Amino acid sequence: MTLSFEHLVSIEQLSRRDADILLKEAEQMEGILKKGGDDRLHGKILANLFYEPSTRTHLSFATAMYRLGGRVISTESVQFSSLYKGESIEDTIRVVGQYADIICMRHAEVGSAARGALVSPIPFINAGDGRGQHPTQALLDLVTIRKERSGIDGIHLAMVGDLKNGRTVHSLSLLLSLYTGVRLTLISPRELRMPAEICDALRERGVIFEEREKMEDALSADVLYMTRIQKERFSDEKEYQRLKGIYVLCARDLIKKNITVMHPLPRVGEISLDVDPLPNAAYFRQVRNGVTVRMALLAMMLGKA
Amino acid sequence: MTLSFEHLVSIEQLSRRDADILLKEAEQMEGILKKGGDDRLHGKILANLFYEPSTRTHLSFATAMYRLGGRVISTESVQFSSLYKGESIEDTIRVVGQYADIICMRHAEVGSAARGALVSPIPFINAGDGRGQHPTQALLDLVTIRKERSGIDGIHLAMVGDLKNGRTVHSLSLLLSLYTGVRLTLISPRELRMPAEICDALRERGVIFEEREKMEDALSADVLYMTRIQKERFSDEKEYQRLKGIYVLCARDLIKKNITVMHPLPRVGEISLDVDPLPNAAYFRQVRNGVTVRMALLAMMLGKA
Amino acid sequence: MTLSFEHLVSIEQLSRRDADILLKEAEQMEGILKKGGDDRLHGKILANLFYEPSTRTHLSFATAMYRLGGRVISTESVQFSSLYKGESIEDTIRVVGQYADIICMRHAEVGSAARGALVSPIPFINAGDGRGQHPTQALLDLVTIRKERSGIDGIHLAMVGDLKNGRTVHSLSLLLSLYTGVRLTLISPRELRMPAEICDALRERGVIFEEREKMEDALSADVLYMTRIQKERFSDEKEYQRLKGIYVLCARDLIKKNITVMHPLPRVGEISLDVDPLPNAAYFRQVRNGVTVRMALLAMMLGKA
Repeated sequence: MTLSFEHLVSIEQLSRRDADILLKEAEQMEGILKKGGDDRLHGKILANLFYEPSTRTHLSFATAMYRLGGRVISTESVQFSSLYKGESIEDTIRVVGQYADIICMRHAEVGSAARGALVSPIPFINAGDGRGQHPTQALLDLVTIRKERSGIDGIHLAMVGDLKNGRTVHSLSLLLSLYTGVRLTLISPRELRMPAEICDALRERGVIFEEREKMEDALSADVLYMTRIQKERFSDEKEYQRLKGIYVLCARDLIKKNITVMHPLPRVGEISLDVDPLPNAAYFRQVRNGVTVRMALLAMMLGKA
Repeated sequence: MTLSFEHLVSIEQLSRRDADILLKEAEQMEGILKKGGDDRLHGKILANLFYEPSTRTHLSFATAMYRLGGRVISTESVQFSSLYKGESIEDTIRVVGQYADIICMRHAEVGSAARGALVSPIPFINAGDGRGQHPTQALLDLVTIRKERSGIDGIHLAMVGDLKNGRTVHSLSLLLSLYTGVRLTLISPRELRMPAEICDALRERGVIFEEREKMEDALSADVLYMTRIQKERFSDEKEYQRLKGIYVLCARDLIKKNITVMHPLPRVGEISLDVDPLPNAAYFRQVRNGVTVRMALLAMMLGKA
Repeated sequence: MTLSFEHLVSIEQLSRRDADILLKEAEQMEGILKKGGDDRLHGKILANLFYEPSTRTHLSFATAMYRLGGRVISTESVQFSSLYKGESIEDTIRVVGQYADIICMRHAEVGSAARGALVSPIPFINAGDGRGQHPTQALLDLVTIRKERSGIDGIHLAMVGDLKNGRTVHSLSLLLSLYTGVRLTLISPRELRMPAEICDALRERGVIFEEREKMEDALSADVLYMTRIQKERFSDEKEYQRLKGIYVLCARDLIKKNITVMHPLPRVGEISLDVDPLPNAAYFRQVRNGVTVRMALLAMMLGKA
């Protein structure tokens, strides 16, 4: 079984078959992880190029590589020295392509991943390019839904929070459109609604969705996908202050409800700490799924699945 | 043999038995290190989380893990990205607990280590929390005293320098209180005396100590523990300038003396370079003991001693 | 076969025999690299100490170590914490010498590498000290010339650009003086000519060279070594703006020419993108040669060739 792509830049490259293969492979990786990993990527090198800091994603990819016996070269300097000297992304990728066997890049600029992948002499994974894409995040969300709800077709998922700026919810909703009977409830203040182009794409793909403003409307879903109101996206501090506390999920909201709570993390108050001990709280298990799905992806893209 | 603790936050968790076990294990690790290490931690991952930079401690833990065949994921960004986004220490530890098998954290805030350990799903080691604790430093000091003086009971140790702000001397003196017949000579300018709460704790534990101001009073001890006057702890630059050169140990101070000179490093002039070639100078051997004691700790906390 | 040096600080330490041994070893490493590396440095640790950022060199050394099965401890903080606390380079090297098996250091200050090597208890490699030396860069250039032109004796090499500030061209021209019949054409604006002391050294060693100002005079050489006009070396911004675009190599300059184009990278416009697809363009192959020659050096300096 092979994937339909050589480089992973955007969630829109994925076919239903790709998604299914990755879900299956991630499941196997979970078994391997429980036994402490293996050495199938012994001798292989991942280059973790982070032009902007992202501890979580950086550590998750490194963990995935190490759990399969590989090595990691990385830079998490806020400012690459080569960048400082004026080198293009393309040249950096060509150079790093002489060192490593696979590249994972995070960059603040939308479109940078596509530019890098175009010239990369080795497999390339987009680990987030600005407000653009972050496909492995969507994949780990998919794995989590499958594991928590034992299936994806027919799922009812509510997304809550900043649906305008959160690339996570954009990517995930597009990825879910590969499955049948998916229903989305999109909950946000008017100012932070899902962008029109995403809504159009969902309509085109036959995804049923409704837009609401109150969190209560989310509580009949199978999965509640909470997101952070992203301070760094607001130019107006007052606007941020007004909206930041608008949705706060508490344990009492979940009484007697069989609803799975997810969050891409970090959270800054959207989920009360009293939710953490409940079986509904899937957000730390979700982190672990990030490791298994990245193990799956690294193994497949390096021909070692 | 197992340790009495799951997480190591403070030196006060250690029993005499814990200390003895670790000393013994560190001794065995020295033999293993001489042969180039082994692979008992193959497949294990250490997360080195440094919220404030500390090259020395960071490299020492990484070295210890590598010498036993393990892997290291780390961040030494001055500012974690997740921190920047407002995540709590607790959430960061819960997340990293999904990646690694053991966590080592350095943080500027007193009490941060206790908060991290409380929620950590995997073993946790405090690598320094502000003016608080730095237990592995005290342990490597203990190993050094044992190796250089072939025993700890009955030792006479003089501590010289900034005894107010140096967490090293606080932790070490508490750790030494587990042993019998230990005698301390505490030498500092009046402004930088050992804090009252440490003195009280020493008295309570039956440690004999005296406070002095002149370095000459230290030269009859078995061990001379020099410390740096820490510029970063002074709000008044003039005060720092007045006190910084107050104690300077030179080779001529050590003529015909069987006294072991230790220093937690970095030094900034407290020990003259002419001391380096003398057999008394134990401070670079002390660095190496930091590797063996951390190998011991990692192996024991991961059940691979 | 062993090298004549224990620490590599300057290209001037290398004898012709050293250079020949390293070229031969690098060639063997290329075969090993093609097969995915080996594990001859299993259990060994490289300390990558970068006092100033240099992604390329940092990643290249780490890659070389990993391809031979070793481990890497590193710091690429712009400012080391120990440096911040006022520690001398000598003390840092003595400390790191207790952790690792070999040290690679990059530092902004000319002469820092010699100071570090002098006290290092383990093999030490200079990875660039300010405007001083960067010997492994010269070695990878040498490997590239040998591979691209199947020999070095009798080669005609043209160097183009900032010959005043570029330490690369200084080191390379001195290294080439070990070979017979080498001819250099030095092309730069008057303000950026090769320094007198390098020209004197070349004369002394019998290297034939000529100084020119026009790039056309370079096009009859076997090898064209382009360099970047280094913005960071100019105190006068206007001067930089005037000189930066003075030499730009385009595909049309190379029509029907059997000339090898090299560049230490990063480039910022000196080589047009239309040169990249030509067989003449050796600069990305040159990057790969940096890995093999560093594999050779690490293996030899650690006694594992």
